[in-house]
Amino acid sequence: MADPSTTPPLTRASVQAALKLIEPYVHKTPVLTNRTLDRLASTPRTAAELEGTEWAGRTPAKPVLRFWFKCENFQKIGAFKARGAFHAIERLKQESGWAENGGREKGVVTHSSGNHAQALSLAAQTSSIPCHIVSPSNSSPPKLAAVRDTYGAALTFSGPTHPEREAATAQVIAATGARFVPPYDHPDIVLGQGTAALELQSQLAADTAAGGRALKGIITPCGGGGLLSGTALACEGTGIAVFGAEPSFEGADDARRGYYAGKRVEAVRTTTIADGLRTPVGEIPWGIIYERRLVRGMYSVGEDDIRRALRLVWERMKIVVEPSAVVGLAVALYNEDFRAMVEQEGGEEGWDLGVVFSGGNVDLNALGNLFA
Amino acid sequence: MADPSTTPPLTRASVQAALKLIEPYVHKTPVLTNRTLDRLASTPRTAAELEGTEWAGRTPAKPVLRFWFKCENFQKIGAFKARGAFHAIERLKQESGWAENGGREKGVVTHSSGNHAQALSLAAQTSSIPCHIVSPSNSSPPKLAAVRDTYGAALTFSGPTHPEREAATAQVIAATGARFVPPYDHPDIVLGQGTAALELQSQLAADTAAGGRALKGIITPCGGGGLLSGTALACEGTGIAVFGAEPSFEGADDARRGYYAGKRVEAVRTTTIADGLRTPVGEIPWGIIYERRLVRGMYSVGEDDIRRALRLVWERMKIVVEPSAVVGLAVALYNEDFRAMVEQEGGEEGWDLGVVFSGGNVDLNALGNLFA
Repeated sequence: MADPSTTPPLTRASVQAALKLIEPYVHKTPVLTNRTLDRLASTPRTAAELEGTEWAGRTPAKPVLRFWFKCENFQKIGAFKARGAFHAIERLKQESGWAENGGREKGVVTHSSGNHAQALSLAAQTSSIPCHIVSPSNSSPPKLAAVRDTYGAALTFSGPTHPEREAATAQVIAATGARFVPPYDHPDIVLGQGTAALELQSQLAADTAAGGRALKGIITPCGGGGLLSGTALACEGTGIAVFGAEPSFEGADDARRGYYAGKRVEAVRTTTIADGLRTPVGEIPWGIIYERRLVRGMYSVGEDDIRRALRLVWERMKIVVEPSAVVGLAVALYNEDFRAMVEQEGGEEGWDLGVVFSGGNVDLNALGNLFA
Repeated sequence: MADPSTTPPLTRASVQAALKLIEPYVHKTPVLTNRTLDRLASTPRTAAELEGTEWAGRTPAKPVLRFWFKCENFQKIGAFKARGAFHAIERLKQESGWAENGGREKGVVTHSSGNHAQALSLAAQTSSIPCHIVSPSNSSPPKLAAVRDTYGAALTFSGPTHPEREAATAQVIAATGARFVPPYDHPDIVLGQGTAALELQSQLAADTAAGGRALKGIITPCGGGGLLSGTALACEGTGIAVFGAEPSFEGADDARRGYYAGKRVEAVRTTTIADGLRTPVGEIPWGIIYERRLVRGMYSVGEDDIRRALRLVWERMKIVVEPSAVVGLAVALYNEDFRAMVEQEGGEEGWDLGVVFSGGNVDLNALGNLFA
């Protein structure tokens, strides 16, 4: 990944340039619709359903919603993370002096045991660049085996805490000269992740079923904030409102809390089933989301709502998505604040809402827990 | 469903006519490809893998396979059964004297607790025709609730045995005058199910990724035989070879055994996880599959091979399919007789093989069992 001081400005034009760079390497993922989910979302919840929630006693909202699901679960490595990783590698290849100073042989490194590790390994392998993955020694062996065997990454184990992982990463860098590619807190990553929303805009414009209507909003999950902030850049100046969605469990809604308190929450410790969203939002995403006001609202939902949305997508759409992927849909279905806002702004005509399904990497051996 | 004596001839032209009739009501389901599965199928199995199987000691086959997956899991009600049911209803509406004699008010009836019950309920509801479902009292309540609440069918309970269900069905017919619509053993159902293969042919012809290549074969699961025999009709005279796939567990491969013994096996009792394929092949499908020799071969696979194929589709394609749906893929991946045949006939150029994923209706509460 390129030196941050040389990265492009954080603008919609830079997201467009990123899409040009990565188009040869990533899938243009399909956009799906589902009339059953539209009908459910456009049906007011009952007063009984709101009992025991923070909206008890309020008149249920009556939004009209038409969903356009951007299916990044069908993306390479099964998640949008491929976009940021390929962009980071392509930008690195363009960096002045990088190849001349042996950068191609020194390779790249990250500490992650999730989708970013797979994405970076694949992107590096595609350009024949060595890739080092620093992983806590308590990571699940099948995931690590995939990174090593399928994508050819070199594995280094560390202790389970964040400082231990950082120290191990520093050792790899000292020994190999590899360039560090963080999972979200870097302009190249943010710009790459924003390309999904850019594609969605053009796919909707080309879709006759949309009848010329345009998106009123896009909602994405928010973990480290790369996807959400990239989406916000991709929508700047288009009139499309961007929203972030988080789990509320054990304070996982750090970005939402920070957004309304006016200060980024820098640490979070949660075991939400939306395991891709357990990290606090990063500094660079935060600048786009909050300081530049490019995200219009942050919403959260509980674990049961995430499970319900997950079950609906599997049962009704017949696609495999991970819990993190459906948090935006759960907000649209079950968060009365969001729904009331759509009712008020959309009126009877309603809203066409883009919903980014961020990934589909679930551990099939642990499915019993998801749907118990 | 129309009186069998007035049904169209069992030909490809009749499948084409069936498609015209049902096109307004069913989805033109997508055709997906997957390079990882192509690569796996085109890699010889190891001698070690064949140990303990009937092919132990044989040189592993080296077929070259490119799959074209016809995704009926995305069909209405989540399975191809919608095609046959809509065709049966549309044909009934065309039957001379049916409406005049009050047929529209008398409605239709079937005994099934599976996909056919949902399909018939939906097709009848779409034409505002009453639908009666006779179901064993030990059926799972959620499935029955869907048939009743979502599709407005009237439920009648019977004892669990086949004679008890038939007796209860006869009672419904005596009381209401409803027309019986069997799940597979009727020309209208067979012709309707064949439309999936017809669509697949035209979708492949229009797909630039196929580069003008045409299908060499199509493989479908075989339970009652409606899908397989309809597919065989849809391919008659096209040069596309049609194959049937069954589970071997507890004799579930009744059609295969009958096919090679020259006599239809009329009863089978199995608890294979491919629960849509537990029924014996019907008389009318048998006439097409065996007597008219429109199916070129029947193959079977064990439960573990079905589970492995299921896992591959969920993990690699990120789509929800039921165990019955992947039996054809399991044959292509793991049955050495089938693979050796493709190697011999396809040579280095290999085969483009259509694989019908028949449905995606799995009980999410029981997923732990599937992937344990």
